[in-house]
Amino acid sequence: MFTQAFFIFSLFFASTQASVLDFCVADPSLPVGPAGYSCKKTTEVTVGDFVYSLAATGNTSNIIAAAVTPAFAPTYPGVNGLDISIARLDLAEGGVIPFHTHPGASEVLVVIQGTICAGFISSFENKVYFTTLKRGDVMVFPQGLLHFQINSGKGPAIAFVSFSSPNPGLQITDFAFFKNDLPTEIVAKTTFLDIAQIKKLKGVLGGTN
Amino acid sequence: MFTQAFFIFSLFFASTQASVLDFCVADPSLPVGPAGYSCKKTTEVTVGDFVYSLAATGNTSNIIAAAVTPAFAPTYPGVNGLDISIARLDLAEGGVIPFHTHPGASEVLVVIQGTICAGFISSFENKVYFTTLKRGDVMVFPQGLLHFQINSGKGPAIAFVSFSSPNPGLQITDFAFFKNDLPTEIVAKTTFLDIAQIKKLKGVLGGTN
Amino acid sequence: MFTQAFFIFSLFFASTQASVLDFCVADPSLPVGPAGYSCKKTTEVTVGDFVYSLAATGNTSNIIAAAVTPAFAPTYPGVNGLDISIARLDLAEGGVIPFHTHPGASEVLVVIQGTICAGFISSFENKVYFTTLKRGDVMVFPQGLLHFQINSGKGPAIAFVSFSSPNPGLQITDFAFFKNDLPTEIVAKTTFLDIAQIKKLKGVLGGTN
Amino acid sequence: MFTQAFFIFSLFFASTQASVLDFCVADPSLPVGPAGYSCKKTTEVTVGDFVYSLAATGNTSNIIAAAVTPAFAPTYPGVNGLDISIARLDLAEGGVIPFHTHPGASEVLVVIQGTICAGFISSFENKVYFTTLKRGDVMVFPQGLLHFQINSGKGPAIAFVSFSSPNPGLQITDFAFFKNDLPTEIVAKTTFLDIAQIKKLKGVLGGTN
Amino acid sequence: MFTQAFFIFSLFFASTQASVLDFCVADPSLPVGPAGYSCKKTTEVTVGDFVYSLAATGNTSNIIAAAVTPAFAPTYPGVNGLDISIARLDLAEGGVIPFHTHPGASEVLVVIQGTICAGFISSFENKVYFTTLKRGDVMVFPQGLLHFQINSGKGPAIAFVSFSSPNPGLQITDFAFFKNDLPTEIVAKTTFLDIAQIKKLKGVLGGTN
Amino acid sequence: MFTQAFFIFSLFFASTQASVLDFCVADPSLPVGPAGYSCKKTTEVTVGDFVYSLAATGNTSNIIAAAVTPAFAPTYPGVNGLDISIARLDLAEGGVIPFHTHPGASEVLVVIQGTICAGFISSFENKVYFTTLKRGDVMVFPQGLLHFQINSGKGPAIAFVSFSSPNPGLQITDFAFFKNDLPTEIVAKTTFLDIAQIKKLKGVLGGTN
Repeated sequence: MFTQAFFIFSLFFASTQASVLDFCVADPSLPVGPAGYSCKKTTEVTVGDFVYSLAATGNTSNIIAAAVTPAFAPTYPGVNGLDISIARLDLAEGGVIPFHTHPGASEVLVVIQGTICAGFISSFENKVYFTTLKRGDVMVFPQGLLHFQINSGKGPAIAFVSFSSPNPGLQITDFAFFKNDLPTEIVAKTTFLDIAQIKKLKGVLGGTN
Repeated sequence: MFTQAFFIFSLFFASTQASVLDFCVADPSLPVGPAGYSCKKTTEVTVGDFVYSLAATGNTSNIIAAAVTPAFAPTYPGVNGLDISIARLDLAEGGVIPFHTHPGASEVLVVIQGTICAGFISSFENKVYFTTLKRGDVMVFPQGLLHFQINSGKGPAIAFVSFSSPNPGLQITDFAFFKNDLPTEIVAKTTFLDIAQIKKLKGVLGGTN
Repeated sequence: MFTQAFFIFSLFFASTQASVLDFCVADPSLPVGPAGYSCKKTTEVTVGDFVYSLAATGNTSNIIAAAVTPAFAPTYPGVNGLDISIARLDLAEGGVIPFHTHPGASEVLVVIQGTICAGFISSFENKVYFTTLKRGDVMVFPQGLLHFQINSGKGPAIAFVSFSSPNPGLQITDFAFFKNDLPTEIVAKTTFLDIAQIKKLKGVLGGTN
Repeated sequence: MFTQAFFIFSLFFASTQASVLDFCVADPSLPVGPAGYSCKKTTEVTVGDFVYSLAATGNTSNIIAAAVTPAFAPTYPGVNGLDISIARLDLAEGGVIPFHTHPGASEVLVVIQGTICAGFISSFENKVYFTTLKRGDVMVFPQGLLHFQINSGKGPAIAFVSFSSPNPGLQITDFAFFKNDLPTEIVAKTTFLDIAQIKKLKGVLGGTN
Repeated sequence: MFTQAFFIFSLFFASTQASVLDFCVADPSLPVGPAGYSCKKTTEVTVGDFVYSLAATGNTSNIIAAAVTPAFAPTYPGVNGLDISIARLDLAEGGVIPFHTHPGASEVLVVIQGTICAGFISSFENKVYFTTLKRGDVMVFPQGLLHFQINSGKGPAIAFVSFSSPNPGLQITDFAFFKNDLPTEIVAKTTFLDIAQIKKLKGVLGGTN
Repeated sequence: MFTQAFFIFSLFFASTQASVLDFCVADPSLPVGPAGYSCKKTTEVTVGDFVYSLAATGNTSNIIAAAVTPAFAPTYPGVNGLDISIARLDLAEGGVIPFHTHPGASEVLVVIQGTICAGFISSFENKVYFTTLKRGDVMVFPQGLLHFQINSGKGPAIAFVSFSSPNPGLQITDFAFFKNDLPTEIVAKTTFLDIAQIKKLKGVLGGTN
């Protein structure tokens, strides 16, 4: 009788809880809205949707000798709608993550291996906040501000960076300026860089015009 | 002429207000996103979408001698997207709403009939805030904290509880621990409860493993 | 030894949890900010801060034969910062809560006694959504829209209304138009009401100019 | 080699950024949710989605001698999801934007031409804040509060008004009261206006009942 | 008697509305929090707090031949806490607002006079969205993305820009890179610019190291 | 002359940017509000406010053989107001972080060393989502849901956990039930645990009554 009574109780709740949104695992085949991807049906959600592997070392055989491996929605569907995401940074010796911003997300970085020189610039008086971080050190980069990371030690460096958004975005200043078809004349006008400098970096990054 | 002029004015506004979202009545047949259900077309919305009946006494013929009757989206489509919802609590004499949380919503309770002993536990120092509430008394339960309600008087008790979300969720700790297939060994490891205690409550609630 | 080990564990957490903000009980003696009142020290918080009595019938001996008894911050300090609050409506027979808005909060109403005719107007096409509510009926009023409640039955009516803000505000249209020193000429110009009508209601409500 | 290395680097980022939501241009053919319209595919977005023309003078040949030309979603799809929108006000000499609210959005107005008397009413003590604005003057109207604008000078006046929402809504009090089928009896009961006054304005605005 | 009854009613509301926060006019002499400045006492608030003049032409006698005149909190205390603010742009012939971001705010621009070439870069694929705007044209710049404005016509240009925050911030990329003491070596490493280019712009902008 | 012109330009911006809030470093000596701690003056902020060390292994000589080392505001003042924080988990062999919630924050965990069995329970149908995580694996725990972590491998395990709030809170269910003065009778009534079980755990954790 004890069991049966609880059974009634359980049935009751089950029938009324059908609408609860504990999470909203992304289903990229459905429409996307300002708040993120549409939700996969809860009956189709598995623990795998909430798990992602950042075990692999990113490929740092490139000019910056560094790699960013993001775990953002929709690649990592479980973070959709949750105001959190994560990425892995690999910096070979001498590697660098060039100046960039995350439009609308703050970031916290923790160093797992190596030594990283990291910093950001305030918009208030353009003040520089930079320091050298060792294993176990944490640094926070406030929302939307320009920041960078440099491997300033010996051997490779690894860090994990978390964001206050499932889709923080990543705007690398050099890419915005030089890796598209924005006319050289406009780049010069809006950055005060020399034409030769712009053409050189457009060449490197594949920009045109 | 007076009338006609206003008519022109009215037409003007009508043609430009087509996008206004005064509300977003849930249409559960469309995709769901992190911010809630998709909206029913405004031409199909009626006053009935904004009205719900909590007049009926919940069935308290169960082990907890209590019932929760929620008016959440999508059962109550008018609250979708509005950061508000409501539910009715019925507690027979001796009835109890066991320890539970609402993930991400605060709750305000008002006693309509009877006497209710209610309380919550802070995460800061695990401090207990509990008291006895009579008819007309109001109590607020801050977001996400464990809380409970007990009918501590004679005869049935009734309360209405409002939430700061159209989908507050309801996680009853006993259900989370004992009413699923989480292995007994893991429950023991993560709760420090005795195996016999766990098996007993799994038995009552229909849990396995 | 078992106990002592847990004691160490407990001490550890206690020392690091000092900053947790489970709630922010209003201390009206400190500065107020856009997010609400400053918080009382947690050591001074008691369960009484989270409890409020709406047991008393409001005084309906007035022209509207109705009363609104709010439980908002700071009168009810426990709701500060929690996106929830509540109020009691008393409507004597024939009583009315005149057209009003809550700037920036949605409202859910539940009828406890009597019969209430309630409605709101959409800004989209000025459509009227109104109905008659009986005991146990619930109605939601979307954020910022004009709405009203009328006791349309026999004998007094009682309702509780909850809001998605600790400080929902209450702007009664008649008060805004007629219960201040806004010049009659401007009221006429911005409402299209006749001068005589305006002067009459300014007279009733104590407005000047 | 320099170029090629950067190419690798670029490819890497490109493949992992597919989910970034820099913006969510409205696609009105897809479902709408509480946070706004679904997003157009980024491959179909053009600069035109972010641009709108408010160059044309609104038609002020109406009883209020004024016009509001909004640039809200979805007419202006680029603002969808961005918490910002804009509209143009044209007031012929003697023109007026009658008392109204924007449910849930604040507004900032800048005068481009002419002289405008503008004001709002607080819900706290129904206090009037009004003044006369000249070219280049800015005034802010806090969220959800009743406000108005009157051309109080010679010749036409022009202003731009921005909102803290892509869909601020616009509830003109006169329209809500008189331009629908809300029974005259209820209007009288909830506004204290005389029956004759109500019938007169219902007549002007096309209201019934 | 009619008047007196309403008087009672009014008194009732007045005594219970003391906590309503219709607005939070900044008092910069009090502590600042994450949500903005503390509020001035409502008894000391005047209409002047909500009004600001952007009538004056900004001084464009500088290298960019342009000026930004902001109306942000606390200079413009009335916008504090309201998610809206505004600024005036003046661009002399050939003037430019260099590439910059607003950390965490979207912007909508309306051209009042002249011709402005404006654009932004997506973080997704670094795509350029730019166009030429004439008087009355509006353009929106999504949150946190790099954007610019150039006077591309004859004679001076004027625009007003509104933001979805009372404190949008303004990070000019050139200032962040060159107008501080960030070591040239680090600038070079994180921007791929040539040392000579960096030193030249540091010289112009007063940067050191 | 070139330099001087830019100097004028710079002065102009400097005088108008005084209100920008790029960040709000906590000053615990000032009042706290619902949005967090008051801000330290920007002139007193140093890079050290944004940096924290989680290099030290937590003391796992306790009954759970585990330790949580948080970097939350105000201990880590730079995260105040930024919707992000981080903590370090150390689990000795066999160690466990017992069932707990973070009221109102989501969490993402990355395994740095060892093997961790982790899981959470949905409030919808009490479904268990658990798995075994190896080095480099990431798992997200949606807001407010009960979850746990167990070192299920050989040797110590280390993880970093990030939160979508600077003050996520930590409510350990066992502490809430047994480590305070909540009467045993009420615990029994609200958890269905046996009296003997409750008294045993109250004994271990130092609870009374």
